[in-house]
Amino acid sequence: MSFAKATSVVERDVSKYTGLIQQGWDIFGIANGGYLMAMAARAMAKEVGNRDLVSITGYFTSPGRPGPVTINVQPIRTGSGFTTLRAELVGDTRPLVTVLGAYADPGRPKASDEIVHASPPELPPPSECIRAIPSASGPLPPPFMDKVMIYLHPDDAVAFSGDRTGVARIRGWFRLLDDEEPDPLAVVLASDAFPPAVFNSILPLKWTPTLDLTVHIRDPKPRVWLKCQFRTRFVTGGLLEEDSEIWDEAGSLVAQSRQLALVPRQ
Amino acid sequence: MSFAKATSVVERDVSKYTGLIQQGWDIFGIANGGYLMAMAARAMAKEVGNRDLVSITGYFTSPGRPGPVTINVQPIRTGSGFTTLRAELVGDTRPLVTVLGAYADPGRPKASDEIVHASPPELPPPSECIRAIPSASGPLPPPFMDKVMIYLHPDDAVAFSGDRTGVARIRGWFRLLDDEEPDPLAVVLASDAFPPAVFNSILPLKWTPTLDLTVHIRDPKPRVWLKCQFRTRFVTGGLLEEDSEIWDEAGSLVAQSRQLALVPRQ
Repeated sequence: MSFAKATSVVERDVSKYTGLIQQGWDIFGIANGGYLMAMAARAMAKEVGNRDLVSITGYFTSPGRPGPVTINVQPIRTGSGFTTLRAELVGDTRPLVTVLGAYADPGRPKASDEIVHASPPELPPPSECIRAIPSASGPLPPPFMDKVMIYLHPDDAVAFSGDRTGVARIRGWFRLLDDEEPDPLAVVLASDAFPPAVFNSILPLKWTPTLDLTVHIRDPKPRVWLKCQFRTRFVTGGLLEEDSEIWDEAGSLVAQSRQLALVPRQ
Repeated sequence: MSFAKATSVVERDVSKYTGLIQQGWDIFGIANGGYLMAMAARAMAKEVGNRDLVSITGYFTSPGRPGPVTINVQPIRTGSGFTTLRAELVGDTRPLVTVLGAYADPGRPKASDEIVHASPPELPPPSECIRAIPSASGPLPPPFMDKVMIYLHPDDAVAFSGDRTGVARIRGWFRLLDDEEPDPLAVVLASDAFPPAVFNSILPLKWTPTLDLTVHIRDPKPRVWLKCQFRTRFVTGGLLEEDSEIWDEAGSLVAQSRQLALVPRQ
């Protein structure tokens, strides 16, 4: 099943949609957060017309399990350049994630200045990286890993062999299965699809629940392969941030993301 | 007038509050975004009880002008560790900013691991920095600068004297006036109170409208002086991100923020 199909939604009433959390898009039995946000964004996109997603934020309130969900969309404001909406994705009876999204008119007047003070991560080609595949014997890597293709930098993949780099960083390639073309929602998925960067630090390899995640889409037309880097610099007060940069093969920025997550306890 | 008073709200009905955007908390006549988010958060806090703000996101939809506002709060979910709420701040008839917030039970069980892979910015003491004060002859620095105390690193203050460092970075101290004790909402204000980091790059010194801003509060009890650093690494497609780190005098992280903003046009 394609990513587009696995996140598809159907309008049931004015601004009210239904979707289905599919089996297998989970980590420790809990639906991937980027996957849930993508489903909410599919519903928002239906109310927006021809505008590009530039910014999306989700606040997570309950774990998602396979089964039907309802997505209530509330347009907030449509201006000449941007449209802002809210969506609440509800499973069973509980709200799973509340989402805000901003969409831009691709034809809006905009500044042409370009400044980049950063470089893509150093990453060998996918053929020299290590594909993350679901574990046959334990919860990690999770079942979700065969819904997408993630090729980890060999240096960073050691987290799954019981070793650690000591640096809270994970680099790797992301693409959808079967040559499915990525859209900005695939980028939202990518931003939450990798093992936590802290798996390469001293922290336990356990579920690392996301409190909130924001993705800024800087290129509305991403290509097939996404070059990703995830880093955590601050583990304090039971919380950690994880920042991603997502680049294309040509070395242009596709997206940035940041999430705040709970530090797994020993 | 204290920051607490300038952002105060009154409950008018169930989960419905009013506030007043005060004169002078503006840049180019438009109310500061962190100030508006702080006002919305004052309303959310009244519904939360004894929990600490850890994460707040605002999506901005219309410029705020001095005058009355209504804040509609919607609790989303209260769990054993966290409470999540939504608030919409409406001025006149238009929604100005829609906010999501997550509040934590200070007594929740949490991991004790601490990892920090970063250092506070190098910053001389406030007495050796340059206070940003409102301009007598132009729009910059804005009137807002005498509502707070901002002391810029001498190297970074050149943006206001017509010179540029060429690096999109601004470092400086922040504190409230008259020894007012800062709370997490003062940190939200601080995260949006400085001149844009890109004022030290090639971009024009113009209004840089925020699309969305997220602040992660990592220390619920900030001290009087906040040591701040703002950086922009990507100006692409008419958009720029601005990241802040806010530290205390002792060298501990108080908060991180990220905003997506529109690049001012030449």
